[in-house]
Amino acid sequence: MLLTDIAQRLGLTLVGQDREITGVNTLADAGPQDVSFLANPKYADQVATTRAGAIITDEVHAKLAPCPVLVSAQPYLDFARLVQIMAKPLGRFSGQSDKAFIHPGATVHPSVAIAPFVYIGDGAQVDAGTRLFPHVHVGEDCRIGKNCTIYPRVTLMDGTLVGDKVILHAGVVLGSDGFGFAQAAQGLEKFPQIGRVVIEDNVEIGANTTIDRAALGETRIGRGTKIDNLVQIGHNVQVGENSIIVAQVGIAGSANLGKNVVLAGQVGVAGHLTIGDGCRVAAKGGIHASVPPGTDLGGGLPSIEYRQYLKTVATIPKLPEMSKRLRRLEKELARLREACQQDNPSGT
Amino acid sequence: MLLTDIAQRLGLTLVGQDREITGVNTLADAGPQDVSFLANPKYADQVATTRAGAIITDEVHAKLAPCPVLVSAQPYLDFARLVQIMAKPLGRFSGQSDKAFIHPGATVHPSVAIAPFVYIGDGAQVDAGTRLFPHVHVGEDCRIGKNCTIYPRVTLMDGTLVGDKVILHAGVVLGSDGFGFAQAAQGLEKFPQIGRVVIEDNVEIGANTTIDRAALGETRIGRGTKIDNLVQIGHNVQVGENSIIVAQVGIAGSANLGKNVVLAGQVGVAGHLTIGDGCRVAAKGGIHASVPPGTDLGGGLPSIEYRQYLKTVATIPKLPEMSKRLRRLEKELARLREACQQDNPSGT
Amino acid sequence: MLLTDIAQRLGLTLVGQDREITGVNTLADAGPQDVSFLANPKYADQVATTRAGAIITDEVHAKLAPCPVLVSAQPYLDFARLVQIMAKPLGRFSGQSDKAFIHPGATVHPSVAIAPFVYIGDGAQVDAGTRLFPHVHVGEDCRIGKNCTIYPRVTLMDGTLVGDKVILHAGVVLGSDGFGFAQAAQGLEKFPQIGRVVIEDNVEIGANTTIDRAALGETRIGRGTKIDNLVQIGHNVQVGENSIIVAQVGIAGSANLGKNVVLAGQVGVAGHLTIGDGCRVAAKGGIHASVPPGTDLGGGLPSIEYRQYLKTVATIPKLPEMSKRLRRLEKELARLREACQQDNPSGT
Repeated sequence: MLLTDIAQRLGLTLVGQDREITGVNTLADAGPQDVSFLANPKYADQVATTRAGAIITDEVHAKLAPCPVLVSAQPYLDFARLVQIMAKPLGRFSGQSDKAFIHPGATVHPSVAIAPFVYIGDGAQVDAGTRLFPHVHVGEDCRIGKNCTIYPRVTLMDGTLVGDKVILHAGVVLGSDGFGFAQAAQGLEKFPQIGRVVIEDNVEIGANTTIDRAALGETRIGRGTKIDNLVQIGHNVQVGENSIIVAQVGIAGSANLGKNVVLAGQVGVAGHLTIGDGCRVAAKGGIHASVPPGTDLGGGLPSIEYRQYLKTVATIPKLPEMSKRLRRLEKELARLREACQQDNPSGT
Repeated sequence: MLLTDIAQRLGLTLVGQDREITGVNTLADAGPQDVSFLANPKYADQVATTRAGAIITDEVHAKLAPCPVLVSAQPYLDFARLVQIMAKPLGRFSGQSDKAFIHPGATVHPSVAIAPFVYIGDGAQVDAGTRLFPHVHVGEDCRIGKNCTIYPRVTLMDGTLVGDKVILHAGVVLGSDGFGFAQAAQGLEKFPQIGRVVIEDNVEIGANTTIDRAALGETRIGRGTKIDNLVQIGHNVQVGENSIIVAQVGIAGSANLGKNVVLAGQVGVAGHLTIGDGCRVAAKGGIHASVPPGTDLGGGLPSIEYRQYLKTVATIPKLPEMSKRLRRLEKELARLREACQQDNPSGT
Repeated sequence: MLLTDIAQRLGLTLVGQDREITGVNTLADAGPQDVSFLANPKYADQVATTRAGAIITDEVHAKLAPCPVLVSAQPYLDFARLVQIMAKPLGRFSGQSDKAFIHPGATVHPSVAIAPFVYIGDGAQVDAGTRLFPHVHVGEDCRIGKNCTIYPRVTLMDGTLVGDKVILHAGVVLGSDGFGFAQAAQGLEKFPQIGRVVIEDNVEIGANTTIDRAALGETRIGRGTKIDNLVQIGHNVQVGENSIIVAQVGIAGSANLGKNVVLAGQVGVAGHLTIGDGCRVAAKGGIHASVPPGTDLGGGLPSIEYRQYLKTVATIPKLPEMSKRLRRLEKELARLREACQQDNPSGT
C-alpha cells in the first residue's frame, strides 16, 4: 500500500517521498516497510533513530522524523485506523461445521460461520455475518445480532440478547445466575434468577469476564462500552454508553453506572448505588456511596517499602485517637498562651 | 395460579380478593397478572403506585397496598419461594446426546441428562437426576451426586467429589492444581498436587470460580455454602456450612473458615489461618491473622475525591513519625504547664 | 518402594530400619505405609505422635521421630521430589480421538495425546509428548513445544507460542486481545491487537488466568515462571524468569517485571513501569511506580474490627490537615517556650 493511499484514506497530509508500505510497528521495531507513530511525547527521542518507512505524528514532532511523515492532529487514533485497515481477522474457518450442534429449533442466517463444537440451543437466533468460534455455547432463546465475533468457548446462557458488532473474547459468560439467597431457618434458599442479560451494539467484553442475569428484569451493558478481562458484573447492573471498565473490576448487584464512566483495574463498586456520567475511579478504588457526574475518585493506597509499611499499618487504627489528642493539644496550648500573656501583659 | 393456592402453599394469609396470577415482578414493573413484594422499607413508597395483581409484604406495610396482599413475616423469603414455584429451569434438552463422549468405564444413571460435547472420563460416576450441560468435563474417577445442575463448560478435574443438589455455574473449575513449588538451586520445582476437592450437598458455585485440589488430603466446601463468580480458593482450604463468599474473593492455601462466615466482594484471606463461625468481612478486606468467632471486620478504604486522595496518600507513610511528634508535643506541653504554674502559683 | 531406594534416589541418609512404602501424606494423616515430612518447625510437635512409616526432616528434628527418618538439608524440596516420583499424572486417555477436530493444515507429532473435542486449527504445530485434554482450543498458527500438559478447555488464540514442559491449567486463555482503544468523536475505536503471546519453557499457568496478546510485538512470560489462578496479564507485559505471581494479581499493559519477582495475591501493577529483579510485593499491594531491584513492598491494609474501621476510615481523609495542625502546634509551642524562658531567666 502506498503512503499516498494511506494519506488519502485517513485524510492526512504526507510530508516526504511516497513509498510502498506492508506493515505497522513501534518506533523501536519498525523497518523500512512499516509505518509507525508517535502520540506520547515521552517517546519523542525514539523518532530520530527509528528505521520506520514512515511515521504518523503531529506537526510539532514531524520535524524530528528521519523519514516521511503522515501529519495528524490525532496520531494515536489515525494509527489505530491504519492498523484496522491492515489487520487480518483471526479464524480462517468458514461455513457451518458438521461437528457443531445446531438445534432444529434455532434460526441461523446462512452467512453465519460456525466452527466445530459450537452448540446452538432451541429457539436461538444468530444474524448475518456473525462468526462463532469453536466451543461457543449459545443457550436456548438467545439472540445474537449482525457481524458479531464470538471467540472460543464463550457461553451465552439461555435468553441472553446481544446486539450488532459485539466482540466477546474467550471464556466470557453472559447470563449466569445472580447471587441471590434468602435466609431461612434451615439455611440459605435460592432466589431463582429469572431476568436476562442485554448487551447493546459495539460492546466488547474481555476474556473470562462474567455478567450475571437479572433476578427480575435486565442486566444491561450500554452501546460502545468496553469491558476488559476477568471483570464481574452482578445482577441488575446497568452500565451506560461508551464506558471503560478495566480488568478485574467488580460491580455489585443493581449498581447503576452512567455514560463515559472509567473504572480502572481492580476497582470495586458496591450494590444499589449510582455513578454519574463521566466519573473516573483510579485503580483498586472502592466505591461505597453514589457519586455525582464528572467526579474523579482515588484508588487504593500505593505500596511502600515493607518495614515502613509494617509501622504505618500499625499506626492507622490509632488515627481516631490521634486526631482527638491533636484537638486536646490545641485547646491546652491556647489556654496556656492566654495564661502566659496574663503573667506578662507587655506581651514580650 | 390463584392467590388462594399461593397463600396455601406458602402458608400466608390473603387479604383482599382472590385472582389468577401468571408471573412475578418488581413493584415498578409488575402488571395485574404478577405478584410483587416489599421487604426493604426503603421501597415502601412504590407500593401505593404499583400495578401488581398482589404483593407479599408484612402486616405493617399491608395497609399501603392498592391490591390484594399475601401477609408474610418474611416477605423476601416467601417471595423467593414463590419464584421457586414459578421459575422454569434452564435447558430443555433431555436424554443422553450421541455427540457426548461417555467412557465405557464410567457409571451414569439412566436419568442423567447429557448434552452434546459433554466429556465423562473413565471411572467417573454420575447419579440420578443430575443434568450436564454442553461442554461439561467430568474427569476420571469423579463422583457427582443426585439432582445436581452442572452448567456449560464446568470442568471437574479427576477425582473431584460433588454431593447432591449442587449447582455449578458456567466455567467453574474444580480440582486444578494447588500452587505449590519448592525452591531448588536451578529454579522452582513442582510439588505435585495429589489431594482432591470435595463439594458437599446444596453448595452453589458461581461462574469461572476456581477451587484447587489439595496438595495432600482435601479441599472442602461445607454443605449449603454459596460462592459467587470469579472466586479463587486455594489448596487445602476448608469452608464451613452455610457460608457466603462474594465475587472475586481470594482464599489462600490451608485457610480454615467456620460456619456462617460472610466474605464480601474482593476480600483476600491469607493462608494457614482460621476464621471463626459467623465472622463477617466488609468488601476489599484483607485478613492477615486468625479471627475469633462472631467478629465483624472492616474492608478497604472508600475512595475519595482525586486531588484529596493524592494529598492523603502522600501523608499516610508519615503516620508513624506523626504519632511520635504528637507524643513529644504532649510531654513538652505538660512540662511547660508546670513551669508556668511555678512562675504563677496563684494559678490565674 | 523401599526406604533405602528412596534414600538412594534422593541422596538422603536413612536413620532407622528399612521398610516398604506405598504413599505420602501429612504428619497428621500418614499411616505406616506413608512417608511424611517436617519442614516448618511450627509443626514439630506433630512428629512425636505421627503414625507415618518414615519422615523426611533435618538433623535437628530427626531425634524427635518415633519412626525411621530420611535426613535432609532441604526437607520440603526432597519431599516434593518424592511426591514427583510417586504421583500418577492425570488423564488416562491416549492416542488421537476421532471426536477431536484436527485441521489438515496442522502438524501434530504422532506421540501427541489428543482427547475428544480438542480443536487444532490450520497451521498449528504440536510437538512430541504433549498431551491435549478435552475441549482444548489450539488456534491457527499456534506452536506448542514438547512434553506440555494442556488441561481441559485451555484456549490458545491464533499465533500463540508455547515452549517445552509448559503446564496450562483448565480455562487458561492465551492471546486474547489487549485492551486498546482510541477516543474518536463518535466513541471508542478499537486498536486491533496484532501482536502475540510467547510462553517460555517450564512455565506453569493457573486455572482461568488470562494473558493478552501484544498490540504490536510480544507479551512474554519468562522460563520457569509460575502463575496462579485468575491472574490478568495485559498486552506487551514482559515477565522475567522464575517469578511467582499469585492468584488474582493484575498486571497492566507494557509493565516490565524482572527475574525472581514475587507478587502475592490480588496485587495490582500499573502499566508502563519496571519492577526490578527479586522484588517482592505483599498481598493486595498496588504498584504505581517503578521499583528498584531487591525491594520488598507492603500490601493492602489489614482489616480491623468493624466499628473501629468506620472511625478510622472517617479520619483518613483528614490526614493532610492533621499533619498541618501538628506542624503549627510545634511552632507555637517553641515560641511559647521561649516566651516563658524570657519571663523567667532563671529557667526553673
